[in-house]
Amino acid sequence: MTPKLDATASPSFAEAAAADATRGWIVAEDVFDPGRIHSTETLFVVGNGMLGTRGTFEEGHTGEWRATLVHGIFDDRQWAVTELAAVPDWTAFELDLAGERFTLESGETLHYRRTLDLRDGRLSRSVRWRSPAGRVWDLAFERFASLADPHLLCGRVTVTPVDSSGKVEVAAPIEPRPLTDGMDHWRSVATVAESGVAGLLVETLASRAQVAVVQRLSVSGAEASGAGAVDAAGRPAARVAWKAAAGQAACVTKVAAIGTSRETETPLQDATALLAVTPQDWDALVDANAAAWRRRWAVCDVIVEGDEEAQLAVRYCVFQLLISAPRNDERVSIGAKTLSGFGYRGHVFWDTETFMLPFFTFVQPELARNLLSYRWHLLDAARANAAGGGFEGARFPWESAMTGQEVTPPFLPDGSDPPKLIKIWTRDTSVHIGADVAFAVHQYWQISGDDDFMAQRGAEILFGTARFYASRAEWNEAAGRYEYTNVTGPDEYHEHVANNAFTSYLAAWNLRTAADVADWLGGARPEARVPGAPTAAERRSWRDMAAAIYLPRDPKTGLMEQFDGFFGLRNVDQATYAGRTQSMQALLGLEDVPRTQILKQPDVLMLAFMMPGLFSRDELARLDAYYTPRTDLEYGSSLGPGIQAILSCEVGDTEAAYGHFMRAARADLRDVRGNARDGIHGASAGAIWQAVVFGFAGLRADDEGWSVEPRLPEHWTRVAFRFSHRGEFKQVDIRRLPGVTSGVA
Amino acid sequence: MTPKLDATASPSFAEAAAADATRGWIVAEDVFDPGRIHSTETLFVVGNGMLGTRGTFEEGHTGEWRATLVHGIFDDRQWAVTELAAVPDWTAFELDLAGERFTLESGETLHYRRTLDLRDGRLSRSVRWRSPAGRVWDLAFERFASLADPHLLCGRVTVTPVDSSGKVEVAAPIEPRPLTDGMDHWRSVATVAESGVAGLLVETLASRAQVAVVQRLSVSGAEASGAGAVDAAGRPAARVAWKAAAGQAACVTKVAAIGTSRETETPLQDATALLAVTPQDWDALVDANAAAWRRRWAVCDVIVEGDEEAQLAVRYCVFQLLISAPRNDERVSIGAKTLSGFGYRGHVFWDTETFMLPFFTFVQPELARNLLSYRWHLLDAARANAAGGGFEGARFPWESAMTGQEVTPPFLPDGSDPPKLIKIWTRDTSVHIGADVAFAVHQYWQISGDDDFMAQRGAEILFGTARFYASRAEWNEAAGRYEYTNVTGPDEYHEHVANNAFTSYLAAWNLRTAADVADWLGGARPEARVPGAPTAAERRSWRDMAAAIYLPRDPKTGLMEQFDGFFGLRNVDQATYAGRTQSMQALLGLEDVPRTQILKQPDVLMLAFMMPGLFSRDELARLDAYYTPRTDLEYGSSLGPGIQAILSCEVGDTEAAYGHFMRAARADLRDVRGNARDGIHGASAGAIWQAVVFGFAGLRADDEGWSVEPRLPEHWTRVAFRFSHRGEFKQVDIRRLPGVTSGVA
Repeated sequence: MTPKLDATASPSFAEAAAADATRGWIVAEDVFDPGRIHSTETLFVVGNGMLGTRGTFEEGHTGEWRATLVHGIFDDRQWAVTELAAVPDWTAFELDLAGERFTLESGETLHYRRTLDLRDGRLSRSVRWRSPAGRVWDLAFERFASLADPHLLCGRVTVTPVDSSGKVEVAAPIEPRPLTDGMDHWRSVATVAESGVAGLLVETLASRAQVAVVQRLSVSGAEASGAGAVDAAGRPAARVAWKAAAGQAACVTKVAAIGTSRETETPLQDATALLAVTPQDWDALVDANAAAWRRRWAVCDVIVEGDEEAQLAVRYCVFQLLISAPRNDERVSIGAKTLSGFGYRGHVFWDTETFMLPFFTFVQPELARNLLSYRWHLLDAARANAAGGGFEGARFPWESAMTGQEVTPPFLPDGSDPPKLIKIWTRDTSVHIGADVAFAVHQYWQISGDDDFMAQRGAEILFGTARFYASRAEWNEAAGRYEYTNVTGPDEYHEHVANNAFTSYLAAWNLRTAADVADWLGGARPEARVPGAPTAAERRSWRDMAAAIYLPRDPKTGLMEQFDGFFGLRNVDQATYAGRTQSMQALLGLEDVPRTQILKQPDVLMLAFMMPGLFSRDELARLDAYYTPRTDLEYGSSLGPGIQAILSCEVGDTEAAYGHFMRAARADLRDVRGNARDGIHGASAGAIWQAVVFGFAGLRADDEGWSVEPRLPEHWTRVAFRFSHRGEFKQVDIRRLPGVTSGVA
Repeated sequence: MTPKLDATASPSFAEAAAADATRGWIVAEDVFDPGRIHSTETLFVVGNGMLGTRGTFEEGHTGEWRATLVHGIFDDRQWAVTELAAVPDWTAFELDLAGERFTLESGETLHYRRTLDLRDGRLSRSVRWRSPAGRVWDLAFERFASLADPHLLCGRVTVTPVDSSGKVEVAAPIEPRPLTDGMDHWRSVATVAESGVAGLLVETLASRAQVAVVQRLSVSGAEASGAGAVDAAGRPAARVAWKAAAGQAACVTKVAAIGTSRETETPLQDATALLAVTPQDWDALVDANAAAWRRRWAVCDVIVEGDEEAQLAVRYCVFQLLISAPRNDERVSIGAKTLSGFGYRGHVFWDTETFMLPFFTFVQPELARNLLSYRWHLLDAARANAAGGGFEGARFPWESAMTGQEVTPPFLPDGSDPPKLIKIWTRDTSVHIGADVAFAVHQYWQISGDDDFMAQRGAEILFGTARFYASRAEWNEAAGRYEYTNVTGPDEYHEHVANNAFTSYLAAWNLRTAADVADWLGGARPEARVPGAPTAAERRSWRDMAAAIYLPRDPKTGLMEQFDGFFGLRNVDQATYAGRTQSMQALLGLEDVPRTQILKQPDVLMLAFMMPGLFSRDELARLDAYYTPRTDLEYGSSLGPGIQAILSCEVGDTEAAYGHFMRAARADLRDVRGNARDGIHGASAGAIWQAVVFGFAGLRADDEGWSVEPRLPEHWTRVAFRFSHRGEFKQVDIRRLPGVTSGVA
């Protein structure tokens, strides 16, 4: 006879009873596959905008990549410059069940289910386990990083002996030296183990950032004995124990608090004080968190009907953006892999401004302002970066961390022959980053109407990046035009090219827009003294220069050429490589792929996406027909498919758009690119939101107004979302009614 | 009242009673300075030729670099190619003394003394500790890695409550994921915790090398309770406890066994079996180890009288060479930092053949044969290395590990600006390594008379390296000579030079000697079929080439020039930098130092050292007068001072020789170069032996005979040592008698 699980003790089981309420909100896994351990750790990340915690098991597992990553806690790493350092973990539960240590690596797993509830970011796992000695236990784990107070981290485990009785001992140790991709970054400063509170204060070895984690346990459903906190060799642990009887569930609640030197000079004291005033009341903690999430979803949700996978995917992407964005800190930004993995070591790329920021600009403008302010705070470093290369103005680094210095590794080891190093050129040649930031500033200004931000911070960014582009341009006397040579556009398969259309056009846009903003400032804020504001003569020269920047076009076809000479490269038919599981770069080799027309991601089409009025629909259709078959959307950059979906919508090919969209939607949920282990594809998540809103719903907005032009996939019956336009929330609700194409409420 | 410690329980105290027997044998420390923690960890390394264990404390310490390094256990490391991976530590003792955890970081240390007894490699530490609660404890720790069976590792701790009674709990955990310079290399394969045996089997992440460590505890002097082994979260530990009464000493003995996949397919089973048959009898283990050491010292000791510091230093260096040299394994060799630290990641340089090997060749020829065989086993990789650069023959890598591939990191981070990388050119241009190996082979052959080795292995090395030098030489038609351009000699401050005298002369020597050995083979072993043996024509061409290789000499002074153009470089007076604490390279900068005549270490003088007949005494005196003031002996290469001491002896300046000698002698014992933290200066240790034997005693030996020409420092009254010459041990005993200069027995 199998005893029934108590639904209140194991809330993940309550889900079935309310299938309608949870439909499209639950990411679930019914079998644990150790071969996919790292990608599912990413999949089940929890977070709250201050930190992210990978979905490793409370009890641990061989080979796991356990990590909690906190915004701004960087430390030096030999060779790789600087990285987010995984902080001491708050999730551990060691279970001693009648003398046997619980782990999925021993005994037999009779039942397993893991769910992430996107409504409130709660991760649950229920396990029925037969121990090596043959005793059966039901275990239910839950955890969440509170959105109500991001310093509060909550977990619990419910233990039910099914067919025996015995002593249960639960320990919750805190590891003082967690590893980051195998590397230690920490020294212990202090440990706490008294009055039931276990905690520690640690400090990074080089950057001297401090993090405190403190926690306490409580038991319900049983008479606890042996409760307390111990310091075992610098690894403090809270512990409880009880005598469990067959069929009787008991529950251990853990409340943990975190403090960092980024917010306070006394992280340990502050975390301890927070823990002291926080009631050990699970329901109250859950309710506060759920209420904060409800407020968030009320404006951020995107409803897709007629396609359950797409519905779940778009919510999953919005969830990932929300748990990654700093709410109370404008000196950090979102890394390419968010706070969910070691990939790119927490560094910030153009991914943030170009791919993720539109979601925030349209839906959470106060967070967009934080993220843009991160760049403003680092303008001095960008100016130094420009000056170091012999240029004027401000040059944002290709990879950015805390200081704004360039932190792109200059070399990376060649995977096939590690003693060899591959030179990473993006730090030198990917100069479009400045215009990408400027573009995001301008879009935020247009959509939010936040003139104060533009006057106080945004304009300074635009002036700095414009001045860089002015000094980086080269005058070609023979052709009578400005050129940008030795650059790399979005398509990183082609480095060191001249007259990359994307880079050149965005530079020209930046020069023109900076002059326009200077004009606006002069009229609207005559008192403003913006550092680096251009003189009237400079404005004129920026506009003249913008008009004289060369954009390559093929005289025969009128097609815009990605860069000088692209049309003369070898054409490779990707169809002949159907079924491949590697990028075209891996197949053709680092040296050959630049000699072909294979793109890592859209480049001219990326320009078309950012500048919707630049090409006519006809021109766009011709560009799409030319460039899309040449783009490695499958295994090239994960930045590609979401944007490609929008372009396919623009040219009226909704079926193709849906294909690209689902490829992006599955990057993390199904790990279709095989690299979800390294962390969430943050840019792809942002592109998914854009694909639904700008692509399928066809939203266009500027400072004067907005419109939608729906082109839903055949089987979608509804798309609904909200967005903020110049301080007011708007609602779009597109329904496919029998005989009706679309309607907007 | 302070109870007396029982001398048998704490043998380190026995030392005072036998001061005469221990004089010149004990390295001692009476105060622990946490600021020098890492250099003293190196200082107090123990080992046995299979492994080395740094002198970290049994109970641990914040910031420690705990490491046991085992020959051949390499793993990949991102960027830095491959490194010796620290294996699970066998030394830990966690002491819970009446409820208080012992650590030198809490309470008060009333007495502290640590000694390393070079006679048998036993490390002892006695501590009197007042706990935070005010209880006083006497603790005595001992450990050694057995030389009788290198798989046996022994430790014990004696615990005496001085003024109170209470429960003592001792745990000996084994950490499954030890860090190597902050990096994790391990996955757990299995743990053992039964019948009092705690152990584990771990595997390196990339190279899949397996290491097993198993151990058991026993107690004497008390009635133990709670003995056993537990597996705490994959960290197995043996544990014992007892009720201790004031003044009563009890002693916990640990015996550990290690097994590796380099020796067996079943390391865990083999280690467990060894542990099972090893009696838990401390005295027997100590005696077996001491007997093995006595046999070693009987031939290896060097006696210096009249200078206690020098006496201790030379024994310390011999000890370091002995615990680093593999006895039962000819596929590994000694890294630049032996098995004592993370410096150079366990890689093997010319340090081994040129600086350390003479000690083994003269005193432990069977170990010299092992070390030279390491190179012979890697000849195929050396041939591939030559072919990869477009050359013939065999080119040994500048840094070597398990496979014989070049493992010099191609770049290293610039310490002052980590994103910048410094290109490491030695892998490309330091081509003298092949001749260094060939020279060591030839010296071993001459001194040992081991014709079998030369016929079966040595000749193949000489032929391979000779053929490389033949193909690497460039014919200068105008000058009618062979040249070597773009090379780096021993002095690494000058890279990419042409006609480096050291490199060119050794290449010529190698070509000539290879031809001679081929002749010898034809006569002595006509049946031998040595791969790569030169034809008669090739022998002729090697000899012709050797005669035509250019060695730069200044026509005016007759001085040999270090390389083309050296005499034209800027002369910098090092005296004006007196009192510096950095290398001249650090002071002048990476870019400027090559423009000066400052040397990192002897170069032309190094050639003079290796080829004693090459220069007359007069020439040598002029070279010494010219080059020595230009050499950064203080903070340049640690390879310099020991060799410089020998040259100063040759030119009759014993006082200068003694200064250089003591600088080398203090590299680790006093950390005068400030980098002992990274590990023992293995080459310097070898040079110290050479400085006493070849320098002060003036030993000269070849295949025909030997002689000594003593020139002891003024205050030395005796130098005595043994060496093996063509299968017979010789004894040299030089005494300064009143009115007598020297005598040889």
